[in-house]
Amino acid sequence: MMNGIDFEEITIDIFKNQQHTPEYKAINPMSQVPTIVDGDFTLFESHTILIYLSCKYPGVASHWYPSYLIVRAKVHSVLDWHHANLRRGSVGVIMNSVIYPLKGIPSNPKANEEAEKTLEKALTVLETFWLKDGPFLVGRSQPSITDLNLVSEVMALEILSEELHDRILSPYKKVLQWVENTKSATTPHFEEIHGVLFKTKKEFRAQLALKSGKNE
Amino acid sequence: MMNGIDFEEITIDIFKNQQHTPEYKAINPMSQVPTIVDGDFTLFESHTILIYLSCKYPGVASHWYPSYLIVRAKVHSVLDWHHANLRRGSVGVIMNSVIYPLKGIPSNPKANEEAEKTLEKALTVLETFWLKDGPFLVGRSQPSITDLNLVSEVMALEILSEELHDRILSPYKKVLQWVENTKSATTPHFEEIHGVLFKTKKEFRAQLALKSGKNE
Repeated sequence: MMNGIDFEEITIDIFKNQQHTPEYKAINPMSQVPTIVDGDFTLFESHTILIYLSCKYPGVASHWYPSYLIVRAKVHSVLDWHHANLRRGSVGVIMNSVIYPLKGIPSNPKANEEAEKTLEKALTVLETFWLKDGPFLVGRSQPSITDLNLVSEVMALEILSEELHDRILSPYKKVLQWVENTKSATTPHFEEIHGVLFKTKKEFRAQLALKSGKNE
Repeated sequence: MMNGIDFEEITIDIFKNQQHTPEYKAINPMSQVPTIVDGDFTLFESHTILIYLSCKYPGVASHWYPSYLIVRAKVHSVLDWHHANLRRGSVGVIMNSVIYPLKGIPSNPKANEEAEKTLEKALTVLETFWLKDGPFLVGRSQPSITDLNLVSEVMALEILSEELHDRILSPYKKVLQWVENTKSATTPHFEEIHGVLFKTKKEFRAQLALKSGKNE
């Protein structure tokens, strides 16, 4: 979009289990999102997809996936770190605080506590290490694909209640500034992409309020 | 080693919490292993390190990190998949079945059950998807860095009791054959690298036997 790559977007609603339909499984047998289909080539995993698109299309500016060996290694390093740290924490907190309650799955306080701890540890590492040298990750002056991937993980926390969201995120000033930096660097696409998130957030909050009202 | 890259190996014993010493934290503030130090450049994350070494040293044969766009994308895809699937399952089962009992941490049957389910699902995906097209991952006829990374995860399961190890792994014939293929392709380095694992396995089994004797 921002880099002039044509695509057709197909939404897979995981709340309606659309990732498990035979049609989607024929494309991704693991039933995971996202997937891209480029001619007869099918590719999974969000980091991998952004690397592939950056390499395939000459129109993609070089700061997105820098080619200098050491900088590229740093980009890979933060992407690998993301999986078992920021992503694991963020997904865990969202599942335990929003998705399970909405689906009526009993809460597991221990799992919730562990997810919050993982997320807070990851945010501390972001704040004190990955963002210590510049406005973008690994000390870059312009955004790379890592910023897109990791900011989207932080943005997903918007789905939490306002109180929980602010309690978790407010101590991390550099993280909050970095989200703003990435937003400015990618506007108006940032707002367009996150439009669905803000719509979902409203719906979820209304549903959770209804549920908690019923339980009172 | 196999590719003629000189290095000095420093063992960080995570059972003695050596990853938390000030000396190691000065190198890796996240206290995670592995780390490489190459001149004044420090790099974390096992996948990232193998990619960096493959790119930096011209002596590394091209099959380890293929440069053709689509093949490289497939290599990245299986590496990304590894984090939240095979690695998560394998580490979870090892922690719950070996490490926690050895450290005297109370077992959590629900966490153990979930880790086993994650591991078995990952082994099924390996067997039916990533290994469906050839002797090595993503249909390659020669090993790539993905084989080194993912085989080492399967090899780590050697640390489990023989009964648990065989119950988990025996249904996955292609996975077992692929471990053998990777071993053959990297002998005698494979045996050398896994020497520590086999030594640890003996020690752990003796300690667990002692503990279970005490509890009877």
